[in-house]
Amino acid sequence: MSAIDLAQAVMERIEALARISEDPDRLTRTFGSPAMRKANELVGSWMREAGMTVSEDAIGNLIGRYPGRDEWSKTFLLGSHLDTVRDAGKFDGPLGVIAAIACVQQLHQSQTRLPFAIEVVAFADEEGVRFQTTYLGSKVMAGSFKEQDLKRVDAAGVSMADAIRAFGGNPDQLKSGCRDPNQVLGYTELHIEQGPVLEKKYQPVGVVTAIAGATRVKARFTGQAGHAGTTPMSLRRDALVAAAQFIAAVEACTRDYPALVATVGQIEARPGASNVIPGDVVLTVDVRHQLDGMRTAACARLQEVANEIGEKRGIIVDWEVVHEAQSVPCSRELTLLLAKAARRHLVQVTELPSGAGHDAAVMGEIMPMAMLFVRCKGGISHHPDESVLVDDVRLAIAVLSDFLLLLANQHPVANKKHV
Amino acid sequence: MSAIDLAQAVMERIEALARISEDPDRLTRTFGSPAMRKANELVGSWMREAGMTVSEDAIGNLIGRYPGRDEWSKTFLLGSHLDTVRDAGKFDGPLGVIAAIACVQQLHQSQTRLPFAIEVVAFADEEGVRFQTTYLGSKVMAGSFKEQDLKRVDAAGVSMADAIRAFGGNPDQLKSGCRDPNQVLGYTELHIEQGPVLEKKYQPVGVVTAIAGATRVKARFTGQAGHAGTTPMSLRRDALVAAAQFIAAVEACTRDYPALVATVGQIEARPGASNVIPGDVVLTVDVRHQLDGMRTAACARLQEVANEIGEKRGIIVDWEVVHEAQSVPCSRELTLLLAKAARRHLVQVTELPSGAGHDAAVMGEIMPMAMLFVRCKGGISHHPDESVLVDDVRLAIAVLSDFLLLLANQHPVANKKHV
Repeated sequence: MSAIDLAQAVMERIEALARISEDPDRLTRTFGSPAMRKANELVGSWMREAGMTVSEDAIGNLIGRYPGRDEWSKTFLLGSHLDTVRDAGKFDGPLGVIAAIACVQQLHQSQTRLPFAIEVVAFADEEGVRFQTTYLGSKVMAGSFKEQDLKRVDAAGVSMADAIRAFGGNPDQLKSGCRDPNQVLGYTELHIEQGPVLEKKYQPVGVVTAIAGATRVKARFTGQAGHAGTTPMSLRRDALVAAAQFIAAVEACTRDYPALVATVGQIEARPGASNVIPGDVVLTVDVRHQLDGMRTAACARLQEVANEIGEKRGIIVDWEVVHEAQSVPCSRELTLLLAKAARRHLVQVTELPSGAGHDAAVMGEIMPMAMLFVRCKGGISHHPDESVLVDDVRLAIAVLSDFLLLLANQHPVANKKHV
Repeated sequence: MSAIDLAQAVMERIEALARISEDPDRLTRTFGSPAMRKANELVGSWMREAGMTVSEDAIGNLIGRYPGRDEWSKTFLLGSHLDTVRDAGKFDGPLGVIAAIACVQQLHQSQTRLPFAIEVVAFADEEGVRFQTTYLGSKVMAGSFKEQDLKRVDAAGVSMADAIRAFGGNPDQLKSGCRDPNQVLGYTELHIEQGPVLEKKYQPVGVVTAIAGATRVKARFTGQAGHAGTTPMSLRRDALVAAAQFIAAVEACTRDYPALVATVGQIEARPGASNVIPGDVVLTVDVRHQLDGMRTAACARLQEVANEIGEKRGIIVDWEVVHEAQSVPCSRELTLLLAKAARRHLVQVTELPSGAGHDAAVMGEIMPMAMLFVRCKGGISHHPDESVLVDDVRLAIAVLSDFLLLLANQHPVANKKHV
């Protein structure tokens, strides 16, 4: 099969997978659902076609194993997730799984064995739609799954433990899914960018440097409500004007921290009547950077700015950090190899951080990790309009395949054989 | 009865009236309700005690008439409203009615007749809670009631026409309630300020110069939603940052238009998730000034500012004027008399515009109109915490009484008698 045919086959498989949904008119595939069962069966059949043995671990991660040259070969992991958000696009997750299978398929067709086994992992839950907790699949594999999450219930009142059982897994054996870092060489995930950077740079793929750390803050500005007609400007303590100055300052502040992104995504002004001065505003601030020091410095500065604005206006500012995740740097060795593979196809290779979270961030906790991003149209993701070019997919498969070969060539076992 | 006793009696009557509510635990008295029926009966009894004959017009306005010196005397109107918002304060409306009755009571006790009749009007609907339309009572009296409003229905599906009938009024005879401007000398309303100006100036009362005109705008800022983690700052079209710059500019802009008030009271950012850049923001702008030219100039400037911000950021700005009311100036003659009366009790008399609407604005369409404001605590109104001092009430009654005497003295009929 030519590279073009292979890419087209990948696109057709993505279409086929997108037809497996729990909603009739839109793509929704949540953890443990009948749609996920069907998806695992279909993807499992493709894995077998590519010469892999197929299994599922205790939480329902689908694993295809392509053996290495020797029985004692260590394992290299490729993968992404098969679950989706509600009303999802087709590529977020499935592209990484199906492209990885295509890479193995090529090896299988050319009867090539590498000095390590390859396992393609299709994670059972990355989006966390059903139980409001993300990365269930990769957390089991990385050993960071929290037992108490088994008690969580979905909207229908079904506990996670029961959902795992109903899917054919075993909630009491989740530890068995945990990988031994000594037996694993690393993990590489191919994923759509979910942002506009590659498109703006006319680059089909990009090599990820790190998965950015993130801080989410809930800030409350408390002033004094009052009648919009009868309260002179000089006697106001308008919480919304204070919040507005802060929102403008958030954007301005990012100029002092290169590559920082900071976003106020939610705002609520109360009491919320057109003729009443807002006395109370609550908003969220989402701050991300691949360097944790840069992010924490920016957050401290933003809190300072909020307090300064509040002090000038008689507004009380409450600053609550509701979520914090450290940056997960990609493995320097794997990333250099990915970039080297990309340079076989592109003069200029773009490196960029991932502003979104991925299974790779969890896997990176216990093993070397790398990511390859594929350009997506308009940066749109988590939406039916999610779209990638077949030519970009062709290139991404080529880069991932070359990456595996480069990895094989520099592998100690491989080198030993060359001796 | 001494002035102090009279003020205390007024406060007691306000307490008694506040116990007449359609809600058990809070004060709510809407148009045409059984509570309004009881209120009209109680207030009517006080009117009779003060020597007035009592009637109700076709929409249920309660009218107490204290005759003038002669049968052919014209009429001067005092009044305010007896209906309330939900969970109201005790003073907004009732204070004006009960203080006016107290003034008449004094005349009655001293057997004083003025060269004009006095009618104290207790309007049946100012707040418009039940049918979402304000000033029903004064509109009937001023002849500006719109027939089509009779078809409006309340939350229970009762039409306004039926509500008027059930209350004992006659929806087919509303025109009979309209006053002939040739028979009426003017209207003066005593009301709590509902703002903080008098309190800040340590003034118990203030003379109103005009009821401010108002413009209400709905502004929409349309940008581009995007992932808060994956979209670099330079590639964003964040509708909320644009809106925030605008909100800050609204406040700044008021500095160029003395006494202008401008308020963004409602804001909604969509899609409204902490990790999504807002693509769409809708907000309201409420602009008021007693000079219409000042208000319209400010509105034009604000629209310009919004467009400038939008152009710089690739944000589309929609600007929709959803409500506009002209300023209603108070009668210069009546206002000068009110100020003169106030100067008998105060060295310094504060003049101020009313930023809120009142029945006086409607009455002012067909007759000379004036208003006297009474200081209220913290500018709080439309809230159970609404509060006024008994000493301020005493002073306000004294000013209103002196105003009537001054008016009598300069009245042509009065003067004729002096000749």
